[in-house]
Amino acid sequence: MLELNEIINKIIAFRDRREWARYHTPKDVAMSLAIEAAELMELFQWKPSREDIDEERLQRIREEVADIAIYLMIFCHDLNIDLYRAIEDKLVMNEEKYPAETSKDLW
Amino acid sequence: MLELNEIINKIIAFRDRREWARYHTPKDVAMSLAIEAAELMELFQWKPSREDIDEERLQRIREEVADIAIYLMIFCHDLNIDLYRAIEDKLVMNEEKYPAETSKDLW
Amino acid sequence: MLELNEIINKIIAFRDRREWARYHTPKDVAMSLAIEAAELMELFQWKPSREDIDEERLQRIREEVADIAIYLMIFCHDLNIDLYRAIEDKLVMNEEKYPAETSKDLW
Amino acid sequence: MLELNEIINKIIAFRDRREWARYHTPKDVAMSLAIEAAELMELFQWKPSREDIDEERLQRIREEVADIAIYLMIFCHDLNIDLYRAIEDKLVMNEEKYPAETSKDLW
Repeated sequence: MLELNEIINKIIAFRDRREWARYHTPKDVAMSLAIEAAELMELFQWKPSREDIDEERLQRIREEVADIAIYLMIFCHDLNIDLYRAIEDKLVMNEEKYPAETSKDLW
Repeated sequence: MLELNEIINKIIAFRDRREWARYHTPKDVAMSLAIEAAELMELFQWKPSREDIDEERLQRIREEVADIAIYLMIFCHDLNIDLYRAIEDKLVMNEEKYPAETSKDLW
Repeated sequence: MLELNEIINKIIAFRDRREWARYHTPKDVAMSLAIEAAELMELFQWKPSREDIDEERLQRIREEVADIAIYLMIFCHDLNIDLYRAIEDKLVMNEEKYPAETSKDLW
Repeated sequence: MLELNEIINKIIAFRDRREWARYHTPKDVAMSLAIEAAELMELFQWKPSREDIDEERLQRIREEVADIAIYLMIFCHDLNIDLYRAIEDKLVMNEEKYPAETSKDLW
């Protein structure tokens, strides 16, 4: 299986061959992440429950998921954020904030 | 370095100890991704260019990045999407859509 | 000048001729609002400052603004929210939260 | 009933007493609209169907709706967009795009 930094390197190489770093301020990449997240959400507009997702819709979902991940990795790369470390730290924070025994009901 | 599936396993174990899978329809997780992306964007509202990001803001950025990544991995896990494969496939599509030689200007 | 309720009536008549009320849960309309807001934001991705907005872009901006307003009015209509009253109440709250004399710097 | 331009005048007066116009580029106001739309959506996260909306939640919904409307009106004011005209033009476009007789099913 690929390592995270191999994937990031591929993404950054793609970006750098197009000289797009000059567009990629953290603010604009954060905006782009939000735009792609909305495009993913649009695939669930009005109705789609799990049973409504056919093969063609699943393919479009995979593409939007990839767009989100690509911007997320560019964002982390440019701000020197170690993504897996950030996730592990957040899980520790969430363990405290939502103790397993007493946090079952979200509603 | 951790492997992607080790991180995903940690996240899903966290979720399952709280029995939250019953809330996590793909539609609601996609909504949650968009909500977290907006919270990241909020940290850049009005002004923040790279120079405005101090250590305290960077810490909040890391936490929002982690929230986005956690929902992204839950989403992929629940729909059986191989995230790295999805990224690699999208990079191939983008290679065709944006040929390096002729796609330098985004504006 | 048209009154707010005349505009709302036109929008609801448009909706009802298509029998779309069955899709318009408040949750889905809120999602749709967020999707349209992201589409407006997309027109400012990467660069656009005020000087970059030409006539053609301004026309697309007008259309996205209308989409946001249409969903906002459907949302208010369906939940019996008086939009102008809600705005006026919020301005009173904001007057207290951000006293004019001491709230000039947002950053 | 208040006229639209009276509401807009109140909002702009509120803004100008705080000298916030210097923060309000169209790009940042569009971002802010998307942030507020996500906050509204958050009130429907995980479950809320219409029956789950109690009086306290409805009050928070009203406040988020007002925030969206306030940014929408600032945006229109600053770009000289006539909001009602934009809505009416969009309804005409939508009449053609979604003929009432053949556009009943969105899914």
